[in-house]
Amino acid sequence: MNSIESLREIFIKYLDSESFKEEPKNLYEPNNYFLQIGGKRLRPTLLLLSTELFGGDIFASLPAALSIEYFHNFTLIHDDVMDNAPVRRGFKTVHTKYNLNTAILSGDVLLVKGFQYLSKLDERHLKTIFDIYTKTAVEVCEGQQLDIDFETQEQVSHDVYIEMIRLKTSVLLAASMQIGAILGNATIDDANLIYQYAENLGLAFQIQDDILDCFGEEALVGKQPGGDIIQNKKTILLIEALKRCDQNNDVRLKEWIAKKSFSATEKVAQVKAIFEQYQLKEYGISVRNSYVQQAMKALENIQLSEERKIVLESLVEHLVVREF
Amino acid sequence: MNSIESLREIFIKYLDSESFKEEPKNLYEPNNYFLQIGGKRLRPTLLLLSTELFGGDIFASLPAALSIEYFHNFTLIHDDVMDNAPVRRGFKTVHTKYNLNTAILSGDVLLVKGFQYLSKLDERHLKTIFDIYTKTAVEVCEGQQLDIDFETQEQVSHDVYIEMIRLKTSVLLAASMQIGAILGNATIDDANLIYQYAENLGLAFQIQDDILDCFGEEALVGKQPGGDIIQNKKTILLIEALKRCDQNNDVRLKEWIAKKSFSATEKVAQVKAIFEQYQLKEYGISVRNSYVQQAMKALENIQLSEERKIVLESLVEHLVVREF
Repeated sequence: MNSIESLREIFIKYLDSESFKEEPKNLYEPNNYFLQIGGKRLRPTLLLLSTELFGGDIFASLPAALSIEYFHNFTLIHDDVMDNAPVRRGFKTVHTKYNLNTAILSGDVLLVKGFQYLSKLDERHLKTIFDIYTKTAVEVCEGQQLDIDFETQEQVSHDVYIEMIRLKTSVLLAASMQIGAILGNATIDDANLIYQYAENLGLAFQIQDDILDCFGEEALVGKQPGGDIIQNKKTILLIEALKRCDQNNDVRLKEWIAKKSFSATEKVAQVKAIFEQYQLKEYGISVRNSYVQQAMKALENIQLSEERKIVLESLVEHLVVREF
Repeated sequence: MNSIESLREIFIKYLDSESFKEEPKNLYEPNNYFLQIGGKRLRPTLLLLSTELFGGDIFASLPAALSIEYFHNFTLIHDDVMDNAPVRRGFKTVHTKYNLNTAILSGDVLLVKGFQYLSKLDERHLKTIFDIYTKTAVEVCEGQQLDIDFETQEQVSHDVYIEMIRLKTSVLLAASMQIGAILGNATIDDANLIYQYAENLGLAFQIQDDILDCFGEEALVGKQPGGDIIQNKKTILLIEALKRCDQNNDVRLKEWIAKKSFSATEKVAQVKAIFEQYQLKEYGISVRNSYVQQAMKALENIQLSEERKIVLESLVEHLVVREF
């Protein structure tokens, strides 16, 4: 069995070998630029891992892995426009380095190219995988819309928040592993179970992200904590805080949310203190753990050797139980 | 046989019945709005016509027709952003009625939904049609990029211009008829020939558009002529004018192109006078007719009864040889 690290390397080699050489240059070069600025290649790597675990040929799965990575990068290019983000992974975003029209059109063609690679798959699997891929692509757009909608909504419910992160983050991870399993000739049941495993893993991962953004230590997380608090992002923590606060703290919290000009350090400290008063770190961890448990439960029922299940168990450790 | 008008009506009924009812509303409602403001529904109607001519079941072709119409409308929504166009068909464009982010994201999901409808087709044809569809979608993006590139290029060659309109306009018409033919169980040869027919028809149509924009009569064309001249659009006429002009007229033409402030009426009159001096209307018509002839030649070789070929012949008359 290839290690996760070597699967990632195999994917990166394929990604590089498939870099766009077509004309017009102004359409394709921005995609080569953006695909080269890196990223963890998590989704394609997990797709290959899934094929490998079920005993399939990972090289036959490479086009599907590339489809998913292209789709993911298309969403990043367009999301960066919508979020007005100047920088990603330390590099200029496409609309900043080039311009708005380039970000739109190069993103569009990247989405189409993602679809095109599906055609290289074994025809036996094409319709099944095509259906999963299109359903997932629709869901990711819906998740992004929900996220945009949240910005102008005063109150967001816990359930709708979970639905948003499920659509925006989890379903693509889940589809990646499901597609990898199908290409590895897993049974329908196992392919569905690995979907559930990855869907819950994705939810736990995103909730851990919310927790780390607030309670993580800069030295371990690699960024200054409190970004979500500064931006009033509706996270699992803020949503629960607004439920738990007494009247006094509710007023204080809403004052901080409404303030247009403030010291970032003070806002982070004050809001974090309210979160701590209501044990929101512990709350976040318990929600996270409930999804970890659901992932583990799906994993239990998959027909794989214990040795192979351990790979998926330690993946949860690695991705979710990150340092504070 | 259904008439073109009744095929159009059948398609519109299907389009309406499939209007988006999903959530989030902010994602789907803009697409319902845009799809309702009309349009000739030329591509889906020609797809159905092609199925009908080859004796297929037009109702089985409806999802493919909708795929193509969704794709076409996705391109319009994004093109309107890139062109900064406030109005289309007398209605506000999506980014004007809603906002930029809505135009991007609603356009994206419309593109994905277009793909999704392909899955409703007979599985026998899925891979073939999927390949034509993705290839065509890539080409349309490339055509739009070439068109954008032209804006900042001083000189555009005749051949590159033809390639641009082929990619931006013709290939989607051609793919529509080819897909319709395949679904109608045409032979591969006939499906390829009807592609060639429609590709050349599309080129002739676009060149006729260039001619009408300059030489058409307002009462017959329905818009004030000279829009392309005012915007310095690289049309077949301007490209040829820059080749044919003597030094004196070349200087005059380039002065008009460079002018930032001018009387639109005067610019149109002066540039049109230069075009007339070099017989560019006649030139445009001869280029147009060469593509009409190629369309007719492809048509000749298609295995269809004379009675059915007449429908395609009169389509050329109807679409291309429009009034001056």
